[in-house]
Amino acid sequence: MPTAAAIIIGDEILSGKFDDENGPWLVRRCRTLGIDLKRISIISDEVETIADEVRRASSAFDFVFTTGGIGPTHDDLTLEGVARAFGVALYEHPDLADMIKTRMGDAANQDAMRMAMVPVGAELWRTAPKRFPVLVCRNVLIFPGVPKYLQAKFDDIADRLGGEPKTSRRLVTEQTESEIAATLRRAAEQWPEVAIGSYPRFETDPHTVIITIDGRSQGALDACTEWLQAQLRTKSI
Amino acid sequence: MPTAAAIIIGDEILSGKFDDENGPWLVRRCRTLGIDLKRISIISDEVETIADEVRRASSAFDFVFTTGGIGPTHDDLTLEGVARAFGVALYEHPDLADMIKTRMGDAANQDAMRMAMVPVGAELWRTAPKRFPVLVCRNVLIFPGVPKYLQAKFDDIADRLGGEPKTSRRLVTEQTESEIAATLRRAAEQWPEVAIGSYPRFETDPHTVIITIDGRSQGALDACTEWLQAQLRTKSI
Repeated sequence: MPTAAAIIIGDEILSGKFDDENGPWLVRRCRTLGIDLKRISIISDEVETIADEVRRASSAFDFVFTTGGIGPTHDDLTLEGVARAFGVALYEHPDLADMIKTRMGDAANQDAMRMAMVPVGAELWRTAPKRFPVLVCRNVLIFPGVPKYLQAKFDDIADRLGGEPKTSRRLVTEQTESEIAATLRRAAEQWPEVAIGSYPRFETDPHTVIITIDGRSQGALDACTEWLQAQLRTKSI
Repeated sequence: MPTAAAIIIGDEILSGKFDDENGPWLVRRCRTLGIDLKRISIISDEVETIADEVRRASSAFDFVFTTGGIGPTHDDLTLEGVARAFGVALYEHPDLADMIKTRMGDAANQDAMRMAMVPVGAELWRTAPKRFPVLVCRNVLIFPGVPKYLQAKFDDIADRLGGEPKTSRRLVTEQTESEIAATLRRAAEQWPEVAIGSYPRFETDPHTVIITIDGRSQGALDACTEWLQAQLRTKSI
């Protein structure tokens, strides 16, 4: 199962000007695709911060998805950050430059042309005919911050990411986490290929604990779930 | 202005089982308090991952807020991660052990007592009388993952964090980002104490760009905002 990290770039999220829609969307999309999203970072528009985050995520995970910071204004620093992460320069990509000139005509000023400046070695992954391609540097896929464009471009290239979806089971009990902790630990040891989560819910009366059982092997999921149901006082959901 | 990082710990967010409410809440709360929230990381329940993230954030920012992973079950690894970040052991804190025994009585089994195991050197910051104190290791404040408990405990200790709120102005234009990029860059150079953001909105017709102007000096904010209004074709909001 491929692993991935998402890097959400933008002071506007951290300062509360806009809510982040891209992290939650990528969570759901990765789950559907069977990509193991291992971290999400929301970071500010600073070249060195972007470079550091991209460098570490690129070496730790199969894919890195960045969102935001690729427009023409002074606070758009993602491409500079990615270039610095890999110690390469930016250059004007001829295909992108042509696209910008064709699309914008006389409005393609110097600032607009910044959007054609890409890290040396970047590939263009083709998307639907009318959309800009996705820029890919090594294993880093660079997406816009505007949710509808991120989503359209991600879906255009999703079949290149591989992945095999997980299945999830869920149990609910009114026992406390302390009461069930030993049982969950034994299950986690007995079925190491299964991921078991425990989440207390205090908004229910009486309080409940949701137990989640995730994995790719139906046999292990069934066995682990049945064993837990035998050990715990679970309720139907 | 103090800086801070939030570390949201929990596979349940990354796998899409639960939405993260704590990141957005901390964004709004830090803004109100005048704390400069510089990054949010959502990471999985793995001791080494937690240790690495805590270590880096602790050295880079004034405060680090962790949420999640402090219950009694096998997937609660935050305290172990924080201890490893600082190269210290866990020990049973006598005050916390007493509180757990008083509160839980006979139900205070070995797993419940795990919640009293804290990194050597941890302080307890007192909260409202009936609540557990906030555990603080160096500059790392450790909060629960359940939103209502995080919020109550954070508000109990918020006056110890300092901070001086920023003011924000906002302009809207129908000019494109490429058209206005040079003007924004000149403003950013002329008023370096002011942070200028540019956010295209494609859901409006015609498309618009929101320009934000943030800072602590009213004089600089006024001057920068007036200069931008004179240079750009802005609309009233």
